[in-house]
Amino acid sequence: MKNIAILGSTGSIGTSTLSIVASYPERYRVASLVAGRNVHLAFQQCARWRPLLASMATPELAQQLAARLRSSGVTGIEIVHGTEGSVRAATLKEVDFVVSAIVGVAGLEATYAAVMAGKPIGLANKECMVAAGEILTAAAREEKVPLLPIDSEHNAIHQCMRAGTLQEVKQIWLTASGGPFRKLPLSEFEHITVEQALKHPTWVMGQRITIDSATLLNKGLEIIEACRLFDLPPAQVKVTVHPQSTVHSLVEYVDGSILAQISVTDMRLPILYALSYPERVESELNFDMRALADLHFEPPDLERFPCLRLAYEAAEAGGAHPIALNASDEVAVAAFLEGRISFMGIPRTIEEVLAATPASHPSTIAEVLEVDAQSRERAHAVIAARTVAARKDMPVRA
Amino acid sequence: MKNIAILGSTGSIGTSTLSIVASYPERYRVASLVAGRNVHLAFQQCARWRPLLASMATPELAQQLAARLRSSGVTGIEIVHGTEGSVRAATLKEVDFVVSAIVGVAGLEATYAAVMAGKPIGLANKECMVAAGEILTAAAREEKVPLLPIDSEHNAIHQCMRAGTLQEVKQIWLTASGGPFRKLPLSEFEHITVEQALKHPTWVMGQRITIDSATLLNKGLEIIEACRLFDLPPAQVKVTVHPQSTVHSLVEYVDGSILAQISVTDMRLPILYALSYPERVESELNFDMRALADLHFEPPDLERFPCLRLAYEAAEAGGAHPIALNASDEVAVAAFLEGRISFMGIPRTIEEVLAATPASHPSTIAEVLEVDAQSRERAHAVIAARTVAARKDMPVRA
Repeated sequence: MKNIAILGSTGSIGTSTLSIVASYPERYRVASLVAGRNVHLAFQQCARWRPLLASMATPELAQQLAARLRSSGVTGIEIVHGTEGSVRAATLKEVDFVVSAIVGVAGLEATYAAVMAGKPIGLANKECMVAAGEILTAAAREEKVPLLPIDSEHNAIHQCMRAGTLQEVKQIWLTASGGPFRKLPLSEFEHITVEQALKHPTWVMGQRITIDSATLLNKGLEIIEACRLFDLPPAQVKVTVHPQSTVHSLVEYVDGSILAQISVTDMRLPILYALSYPERVESELNFDMRALADLHFEPPDLERFPCLRLAYEAAEAGGAHPIALNASDEVAVAAFLEGRISFMGIPRTIEEVLAATPASHPSTIAEVLEVDAQSRERAHAVIAARTVAARKDMPVRA
Repeated sequence: MKNIAILGSTGSIGTSTLSIVASYPERYRVASLVAGRNVHLAFQQCARWRPLLASMATPELAQQLAARLRSSGVTGIEIVHGTEGSVRAATLKEVDFVVSAIVGVAGLEATYAAVMAGKPIGLANKECMVAAGEILTAAAREEKVPLLPIDSEHNAIHQCMRAGTLQEVKQIWLTASGGPFRKLPLSEFEHITVEQALKHPTWVMGQRITIDSATLLNKGLEIIEACRLFDLPPAQVKVTVHPQSTVHSLVEYVDGSILAQISVTDMRLPILYALSYPERVESELNFDMRALADLHFEPPDLERFPCLRLAYEAAEAGGAHPIALNASDEVAVAAFLEGRISFMGIPRTIEEVLAATPASHPSTIAEVLEVDAQSRERAHAVIAARTVAARKDMPVRA
């Protein structure tokens, strides 16, 4: 029986993890939940799963949750809050496995604390690896803690890597769906609307990750994540556009063999893989090989998708630059969603912030968070300057 | 340094193995060669590779080889012949690895002797596994000898199996190019000519294997080989038609993950894999992922390709039936190539021979060879009877 801590239990990875726990009651039990702001769902999860501890983002939300549980007669759950609460949820002595699925850098401290407490990690939070990957992987090596990727691409790489050693890997290939604008001519990118960008062809996801999939910045973050997780230089991490999202990624070995992983596009599969590793557990998540018809692959276009180029540049620079890439993108995507900058304003904002980021190598989580905050400020400044400039010169947007 | 015995050195796998040895002189050396009937090529191979021992099919051919070597001043190579010669080549104490690539059951005794002598085997001879797979794998388990498949499909399965345990395998998928008649309507199968059947879309191979690829009997033999090599029942060995021959096979795990192996269609790759296993050695056999465009998969049609159905039936029956399948096919293909039976006469002949084969479980190589000989006689008799019947009722062929 594995006791699981779920950091980000009300998000999409969190709820999928709980559905896996529901399917395998003899294997997994919920030890703790970190639920952020959704008191209603956190209440339901606590009532059903009876964790030892649950944490909300703020003291007020924690009080609301505690009150609802009390009035429903649910007892025995310790309710905590904030970063300290997340850290406690991740490091309880009863916890055997931590699913790190808080979106953004908010999950960073709890994930780091879990590694330092020797807990195996299922990593669904790519910002953690992008912003603090060097620190996390160094700590995981030191503590001999396995970091199991839950991202479908990195999970596929993890599986394909079992057919050889790291030294035998020539390069890895992350597959990208190509997003909704795979075939759009460059000239039309400036006029992409929010509605168009929010339509993802394969996966149903949150807003930021959907926009990141449309700019391919998401794939850029995955490149950096892969470099960290698998200890590979950016030159050995390639991208191939594969609209069907059937092959989740590939590993090319020095002898010329390529291993690929295929499965349904359902996050429960990489979650189950991470929870049960090194075993594989029978599931109903079958891929129907008889329905496999045509798979297409093509190289990505760095001109239409400059975010991919920026990610490679940030990965090569290392240190503060991947942090700045992630932080400036988050700010730029929010501005795009609010109609303040254009679609191509996203890579332009990131490029300016990266150019303004001094080379540095944060070595603590606190330093990472500082660079993150500075990068957000820089991004806001860039967007404000561009918005003002644009207003003076309508109708061009930033 | 690994000293290699090559059983079948003048065939296509044998010459490919020697080209690998030529590329890695610091890793591999030729210890012995078994060359069959091609004295000219055997002479060139002996002169270049200076094995300790070389074997030809008959005493006359061995004398011819010895004479040519003597007159060219090549000394120090022991020249032997026949089955006894093959067995000596396979079991020399200097031999570290045996490539078993003699076509047909001729290589059976030497391969078995190599296993009993504790030599790791690279297995390119699928008839060995079809006819005597139960005996060979039992001996290999007993002697703790690795049997490494050189067939591209089984080699792919071997690689994909590294991502889990045998107990975690749900089923495996052998890819089939589908042969030249993948899209031909059933009504035209009766009129397929030898010339049409000898044109294979992807691989350049010998005549029997090319016809076997057109009838899909080749895939049928591979199903049985896979059952033996990987200890799987026939129901867990599936076939998917994949005309590009880019994905060489796939392993589906119980959790829903499918691992696939992709590479160039070059036999040197599985040979190198087998020779270097468990290591992977750098090669120039690169697959250009940038050139990967479209991959197609479809289910096989058992009505147009009855050989596939017959192979499943023989696999289920086990014992004598896979031997009869292989032997009757070899006879039927020869008859087809000589214009004595039609293309669909091949499965009809096999079906009659299988129906006439009594259930039995040969437990020695001698018993296997006896069933093989009986099956060939039965096939000849079936074909003779049909040919006579057809002559009486021209122009219909058997």
